[in-house]
Amino acid sequence: MLLPFLTQARAPLTCEIDALNESGEQQRISIPAERALTVYVDKRELVTLMTLGAQPELLVLGFLRNQRLVTAVTEVESITVDWDVGAAAVKTRQGIADLEARTAKRVVTTGCGQGSVFGDLMAEVDSLVLPPANLDQSQLYGIVNAMRLQETTYKSAGSVHGCALFRGAQMLVFVEDVGRHNAIDTIAGWMWMQDEAMTGQDKVFYTTGRLTSEMVIKSAQMGVPIVVSRSGITQMGQELAQRLGLCTIGRATNKRFLCYSGAERLLLP
Amino acid sequence: MLLPFLTQARAPLTCEIDALNESGEQQRISIPAERALTVYVDKRELVTLMTLGAQPELLVLGFLRNQRLVTAVTEVESITVDWDVGAAAVKTRQGIADLEARTAKRVVTTGCGQGSVFGDLMAEVDSLVLPPANLDQSQLYGIVNAMRLQETTYKSAGSVHGCALFRGAQMLVFVEDVGRHNAIDTIAGWMWMQDEAMTGQDKVFYTTGRLTSEMVIKSAQMGVPIVVSRSGITQMGQELAQRLGLCTIGRATNKRFLCYSGAERLLLP
Repeated sequence: MLLPFLTQARAPLTCEIDALNESGEQQRISIPAERALTVYVDKRELVTLMTLGAQPELLVLGFLRNQRLVTAVTEVESITVDWDVGAAAVKTRQGIADLEARTAKRVVTTGCGQGSVFGDLMAEVDSLVLPPANLDQSQLYGIVNAMRLQETTYKSAGSVHGCALFRGAQMLVFVEDVGRHNAIDTIAGWMWMQDEAMTGQDKVFYTTGRLTSEMVIKSAQMGVPIVVSRSGITQMGQELAQRLGLCTIGRATNKRFLCYSGAERLLLP
Repeated sequence: MLLPFLTQARAPLTCEIDALNESGEQQRISIPAERALTVYVDKRELVTLMTLGAQPELLVLGFLRNQRLVTAVTEVESITVDWDVGAAAVKTRQGIADLEARTAKRVVTTGCGQGSVFGDLMAEVDSLVLPPANLDQSQLYGIVNAMRLQETTYKSAGSVHGCALFRGAQMLVFVEDVGRHNAIDTIAGWMWMQDEAMTGQDKVFYTTGRLTSEMVIKSAQMGVPIVVSRSGITQMGQELAQRLGLCTIGRATNKRFLCYSGAERLLLP
């Protein structure tokens, strides 16, 4: 399979500043980076993403995927990120037809992070069919524990969201970003870059963020039928998940959790 | 002053669902609503906002304000929200010139909630001059305490962000939404609806969300020179705040806090 060429423009993820604390003392702390990355597709400006900057090429690839602007990874020839100018240049093999028309309709969502969904995602929901898949309780606890042990920018600097893809309790990839939607998009980009055509069938998403409608839709679009969160769910997230038969599990810490939808996929002892 | 007519289409903020807990028992819980609200300006579709639905008219008004699509409240004749069709119809007195051109350039930000900023907000930053204003430590503790005591959807259902406007330690208005940007926009709309032309001069913003670049810019645009958060700050948020002389205070719980910028506005004993 002809994969795109990607630069490796990882940037520093944290910086140190002096803050004044309640005792009136200067205190050296770490805070997460936040950078503007303007995406150009075949030399046309598409969007500016605000990102931590860990894996900007995969973020851009996953953004194009989750926005349905490209339908196969082979359509992308290269993604070149240059932090000096804050730009990601995407070169496609054949161009994207109707780019302007397809990005005209906007949904501004509840997303931390990239909050905008082009087009009519909602209309697509009913056409999605998720694969059969289960998660047992020990795998769930394994996922929560792996996230607990993971070294993170969140632990050192706070103010970022984490997201990971698991096969059973095995962590395949872990991403952080200032927005949880950037994190999930980066994982979508990563999945596309794997040698095998990686499907969501036997995968589980973990996110530190809330399960809003957009998070549920993105998981479903990527074919991942089970989503685990440390946080809670919104009404639309829950209703969409139920319609999709997607298993949503929230408030997952230690050995506690709540399953909001798709409980038939969760195997309790 | 000729204020716009606003409907009062408040919708239920929470709903109850049955979730399955770790003991395999059904548990009745509250979750926050999340609804799509499509905004039409003079019959042209502008954007779809995902919102809790507490004060949709003020949200739309503040969205138009913070996106710089209207420059004075008097330009808006009415905002009519109808939840049956999920639509907010904005009628302006004179129309908005170049609406399409002005909404063409997109910034997808780190915002929880509405994540899109039209146009070139960044370019505007350097033209903003914030009024002189201070906050003393007892006022800061008063703000944190008022937020602690506030009855909230967050306490009953989780998964929402809260935002409030204070004069000293006096809470003027409190708003929650599924996105923190919706919450701050709703406050911007509320300020515009006050009889006096309310300025940000003697005001303090409180937000439960992170202080990203967009939050700092929005506060500055509304002329509010002091922002307090329960959460942390990002690098771009801190750098912008410093450039603006905006006082940012984070990690504010109990009697602890960190001041990241504009410390000259914070009066410690």
